[in-house]
Amino acid sequence: MNGRATFHFQIPVYFGGGAAVAGPKEGQGPMGPFFDLIYDSLQSAEDSWEKTETAMQRDALAKLLEKAALTDGSVDLLLGGDLINQLTVTNFAAVERDIPFLGLYNACATMAEGLLLASSLIGAGFIADAAVVASSHNATSERQFRFPTELGNQRPSWSQWTVTAAGAALLTNRPGPVRLISGTVGRVVDYGVKDANDMGAAMAPAAADTILRHLRAEKASPADYDLILTGDLGRRGRRLLLALLEKELADVDERFQDCGVWMFKENQDVYAGGSGAGCSASVWSGYLPRAMIRGQYRRVLLVGTGALLSAVSVGQGASIPAIAHAVELRTEGKEAR
Amino acid sequence: MNGRATFHFQIPVYFGGGAAVAGPKEGQGPMGPFFDLIYDSLQSAEDSWEKTETAMQRDALAKLLEKAALTDGSVDLLLGGDLINQLTVTNFAAVERDIPFLGLYNACATMAEGLLLASSLIGAGFIADAAVVASSHNATSERQFRFPTELGNQRPSWSQWTVTAAGAALLTNRPGPVRLISGTVGRVVDYGVKDANDMGAAMAPAAADTILRHLRAEKASPADYDLILTGDLGRRGRRLLLALLEKELADVDERFQDCGVWMFKENQDVYAGGSGAGCSASVWSGYLPRAMIRGQYRRVLLVGTGALLSAVSVGQGASIPAIAHAVELRTEGKEAR
Repeated sequence: MNGRATFHFQIPVYFGGGAAVAGPKEGQGPMGPFFDLIYDSLQSAEDSWEKTETAMQRDALAKLLEKAALTDGSVDLLLGGDLINQLTVTNFAAVERDIPFLGLYNACATMAEGLLLASSLIGAGFIADAAVVASSHNATSERQFRFPTELGNQRPSWSQWTVTAAGAALLTNRPGPVRLISGTVGRVVDYGVKDANDMGAAMAPAAADTILRHLRAEKASPADYDLILTGDLGRRGRRLLLALLEKELADVDERFQDCGVWMFKENQDVYAGGSGAGCSASVWSGYLPRAMIRGQYRRVLLVGTGALLSAVSVGQGASIPAIAHAVELRTEGKEAR
Repeated sequence: MNGRATFHFQIPVYFGGGAAVAGPKEGQGPMGPFFDLIYDSLQSAEDSWEKTETAMQRDALAKLLEKAALTDGSVDLLLGGDLINQLTVTNFAAVERDIPFLGLYNACATMAEGLLLASSLIGAGFIADAAVVASSHNATSERQFRFPTELGNQRPSWSQWTVTAAGAALLTNRPGPVRLISGTVGRVVDYGVKDANDMGAAMAPAAADTILRHLRAEKASPADYDLILTGDLGRRGRRLLLALLEKELADVDERFQDCGVWMFKENQDVYAGGSGAGCSASVWSGYLPRAMIRGQYRRVLLVGTGALLSAVSVGQGASIPAIAHAVELRTEGKEAR
């Protein structure tokens, strides 16, 4: 295994804006104030859950371009994906935009994959601006991956709640306060977890693998970061990640946080926390950049975590492989710690 | 719409080898002699069609590395995808390799998407070697997108036959006879086709859009190429593509060919021809580079074509958006025409 899967962006790449759209339950959580738009129902004016999820991506992209004062013609590339079969949601958001499109799928690590690829293409000088989008929706995901939601099936205490949200971020070569420094592509890791409700356990080893590889490539330790923010490990997955890392690293402490834990309040009945491609996408496009710009975090490692399961593979008795991609951000104009 | 979606690879990128694995019907077609391995059944020793498709990707990757005398540790990145929900097939091929992985989905344009992204990352100096893989399987696709194959459902004359094949290509910065010059990212185009059997009609407008944009960016005309090879338009889609292009271009003639037309003999009962992500992947990794190396074609434009449908979108009455990505190849050591 060589170390070339960590990319450093030579031409500086900046965060040029973000927009996040969420469902009603997410709107009532701690991230609520940082969403640009909160839907008041899982099914908006659209006539299906999938079309509602497409509408969330459409609204996030429209808000993003509006806030950045850009038109389709000034964005070089759209990268993105979702959890629904064949990226149904993203395809129908992309068809409405006159922007060349690359469809990505690494489950809930898709936003991180998009940020990493967009940064690479900007950092290499191929393009100047790219929009990255990802989403998930509780009802579209649950019926596809587990049970029809109408069944009211009982869920185990270690299950997570698929987040209803879309996040869109603009990356650009035009200087701004938050810079994307580097990224590490993840390997597919499989510890043999077969329970489709136990996503945190399936994903924690992939997150540990990528974090260790990224730190090694950057010659850094956790103490060098203000925040190491995983996508959707949830409470159980985060605990497993810390247990895996404690064997290898010092400073495995509260600087490790997780968007799935941040998404809901303790009393919102989501058991182990939030999950879904829209979980990290909406936090990274909404709360996080605002917190970095106001100086709360200066050096941040984002770690998108994806469980590579399908109804087919679970039904055929296969285990759940997982992957994680990392992207490192810093605020400009201040010395890196 | 700006022109920045055409990337030119400054650091030269070369084709470093290819491997193709196919099913029995494909093995009997014109491409048969160029496959590295031909399965004698749609279901090999594996206990499901999906696992058989994974085995085809696994075999293609193993052959590729064997022929190139490389180990996992000397390949920086694996990029790829397939048509099955959540990339089930590719995820389980990727977990067996110790190579960082990026999952892609643009339907049957996925191989082209992978070649374009891998070339960009090599051409920018981020990595030295990348493997790109894509596949499809008649039985896994037909039951997922249309009808259970056991039904023996009657198919219309304009339908295509999903190809059972996997193709894997190695791209590298080490000089070789075939060089990847540039690529154009496609836009999502929707002409309102709603018939899931009429993929050629859904995809032809996307192919025309990308070909016109690529030619404009390269200041080239069709006569500058020895071959413009689309992925899986089939006979009907190819005819529609030529009709669309004739309004805009001269030299719209036999230099426009299609892997779906090439894949089967007239008497193989596939109606409009082959389709599927494995169609272009196996031709571009098997026959094509051999033909270029022996001098049959010197300047070639590959155009991957993808129909962005799902059982969900078709079931909900939606039309079929499509996309096409282009990659330009030339043989080295001879003057480009």
